Amino acid sequence: MEERIVKKIILGISIILSGFMLAACGSVDNLSKDTSNSSGSKTKTQLTGQTNTDYYQGVIKNGRYQTSKSRGVSVSQESNQFNIKGFENGLLDISKKEFSTKKYIFQEGQYLSTSTVEKWLDRKSKSNPTGLNPVKSKSTNPNTRNPIYLSQIDEQDFMTQSGKSLKLSAMTVGLGINSVDYYKKTAYGPTYETNISNAQVKKQGKAIANQVIKRLRQRAALKNIPIIIALYKQASDDSLVGGNFFAYSMNDDGETKIAKWDTINQKNYVFPLQSDKKGPSQNDADSFDNFKSEIQGFFPNLSGVTAQAQYTDGSLSGMNISITTQFYSQTEIISFTQYIQNAAQRYLPANAPIDITVSSTEGIQSFLSRKQNEKKFSAHIFNSY
Amino acid sequence: MEERIVKKIILGISIILSGFMLAACGSVDNLSKDTSNSSGSKTKTQLTGQTNTDYYQGVIKNGRYQTSKSRGVSVSQESNQFNIKGFENGLLDISKKEFSTKKYIFQEGQYLSTSTVEKWLDRKSKSNPTGLNPVKSKSTNPNTRNPIYLSQIDEQDFMTQSGKSLKLSAMTVGLGINSVDYYKKTAYGPTYETNISNAQVKKQGKAIANQVIKRLRQRAALKNIPIIIALYKQASDDSLVGGNFFAYSMNDDGETKIAKWDTINQKNYVFPLQSDKKGPSQNDADSFDNFKSEIQGFFPNLSGVTAQAQYTDGSLSGMNISITTQFYSQTEIISFTQYIQNAAQRYLPANAPIDITVSSTEGIQSFLSRKQNEKKFSAHIFNSY
Repeated sequence: MEERIVKKIILGISIILSGFMLAACGSVDNLSKDTSNSSGSKTKTQLTGQTNTDYYQGVIKNGRYQTSKSRGVSVSQESNQFNIKGFENGLLDISKKEFSTKKYIFQEGQYLSTSTVEKWLDRKSKSNPTGLNPVKSKSTNPNTRNPIYLSQIDEQDFMTQSGKSLKLSAMTVGLGINSVDYYKKTAYGPTYETNISNAQVKKQGKAIANQVIKRLRQRAALKNIPIIIALYKQASDDSLVGGNFFAYSMNDDGETKIAKWDTINQKNYVFPLQSDKKGPSQNDADSFDNFKSEIQGFFPNLSGVTAQAQYTDGSLSGMNISITTQFYSQTEIISFTQYIQNAAQRYLPANAPIDITVSSTEGIQSFLSRKQNEKKFSAHIFNSY
Repeated sequence: MEERIVKKIILGISIILSGFMLAACGSVDNLSKDTSNSSGSKTKTQLTGQTNTDYYQGVIKNGRYQTSKSRGVSVSQESNQFNIKGFENGLLDISKKEFSTKKYIFQEGQYLSTSTVEKWLDRKSKSNPTGLNPVKSKSTNPNTRNPIYLSQIDEQDFMTQSGKSLKLSAMTVGLGINSVDYYKKTAYGPTYETNISNAQVKKQGKAIANQVIKRLRQRAALKNIPIIIALYKQASDDSLVGGNFFAYSMNDDGETKIAKWDTINQKNYVFPLQSDKKGPSQNDADSFDNFKSEIQGFFPNLSGVTAQAQYTDGSLSGMNISITTQFYSQTEIISFTQYIQNAAQRYLPANAPIDITVSSTEGIQSFLSRKQNEKKFSAHIFNSY
């Protein structure tokens, strides 16, 4: 009864608003109710809608997407963009393993604020007792100084519906650990590098993870939910792919110490491989090279064909190919795209999902994609009127 | 027998090459034969392959795409890019009406060379007797001078298979007629404009078309094929959409004079409509506005939502929506894209094909599309490793 009256009022206020609610909210219709938040004003919670179980639905509050409480910290911290996108995507993939997209609703991290994250990412010091990076050492020698290990933190919240509201039911926290720490000895001086061994990345990452889970459990809302902590090894600043997750831990309700780590065997490569580098599969590298020379023969002015390739447990788990060129006409783009579609089908490794984008100086021209378990590439050619 | 031997030799020469031939050529296997061209060397003709009957297959010669003989002339002539893409796309659409993509193979124009096209586009003069634009008048007054009418020419060839080679079987020529002619009185002086009325665009376009068909028929290869001449009214340089085709003529084999024009009733608009402009459908304009405000409420930092809309015979025949924004995270892009997918479904006009691209300063982030006769939008989110 009450719900119906509320709905009638909402519908009365604005056809557009109510239209949106009914449309954009899929299974969330019963979430569209008014609830009081701490400041006493009314909060309406909605969901983005889910069109594909590859992705979680997201949370909308009062018609606005609920952004992360530490929004933008990674962007300002990281100089290699690939470490950001790869980190966020990889973390979502880990979350999906444990928290089904059918059951859980995704919420951008609401428990770690910008200031908390900034403090945690900083060095421990008198003025910053919660710093998760080691105290500054007197030495500035790259091999003896204490480097910055922890480079970025990402929090993902997973909600379930509880009656008419959303309840936090799980959390995933990703920790990005440097493989190289870039530092300056004097304010405007040159940049030095401390290389951090794989063994140290693991050891320090796991130690920091234990501190993080302990801190999270001190908060009432996080005491009794499952929390995943995942560890990511950051790529160096000059890398054309991001780093990789190497371990994660699923901590059941209430656990304050990490009992067990699951290993993630994932690595990214850039194709064509540099002559001094070896990929996990010579076959895949050759396939790409054949595809590349095929494509580059097609047009007089084709410039670049490169790819990011991801391997999981030794086999190709995804590839993004980027083709840049100077085109003259739309008919050339159409012919080229059809040609790529056939060449991709023939040359590129089977099974793994593959994206191909064709761009000119004026932006993306066409785009091809083959999803996991699909046999054929689909293509889209961008148009203009 | 002979074909088999030729194939064996080719396969022997190079596994890669032969691999390509068999793969990339779909129905074209029997075209992969050696033929002598005028210079005595061997030419191998192949096709791009066709993956979708929305598009023609294109012609490949000796492993390279056969580019247009007048490649790049339009690009150097036109200052509004929308007049190029829209012209080429629109011309293809007209060709498809008359020459089926199932029967015909597309070849970039091979009969009008760069120098021919440049001469035709120039003014008629003693040194340029074939110029299709009027002689330069003494007057430099915008209302009394002779403007440049013909601004661009595009030739499309349509081939059919004849035994083991391709034969020219139809042609389409597009003529772009200025609605505004931009000119200078002195070499580095200011730019003036001569506005050309719709009546003049039509009259001059049709007169030029008659000269063009006459000239084309003088060439042996073009004497006895159907030739379409299509007329396009160019948009002004400050337009955010290209111009529009307004008439075309299908000239049967041998006809040297245009007997009949078919009217094309097509026009492009930019959404949101400027306050002083009226579109053909207030309903569509409102739908777009509602979609836009819905989307703009979603994120704090959303900047632009604009669209190109094309109307044919008064109804919406296509729309390209471009959303530009500053995002922080991949999860925001995912949520935003799912949200757009639902909002698009609800607000945007049904039936017409619609593309939506979401871009940030770092390029395209995601992309949604609903094809003609499809009910739902599909979405793709660009990824990085």
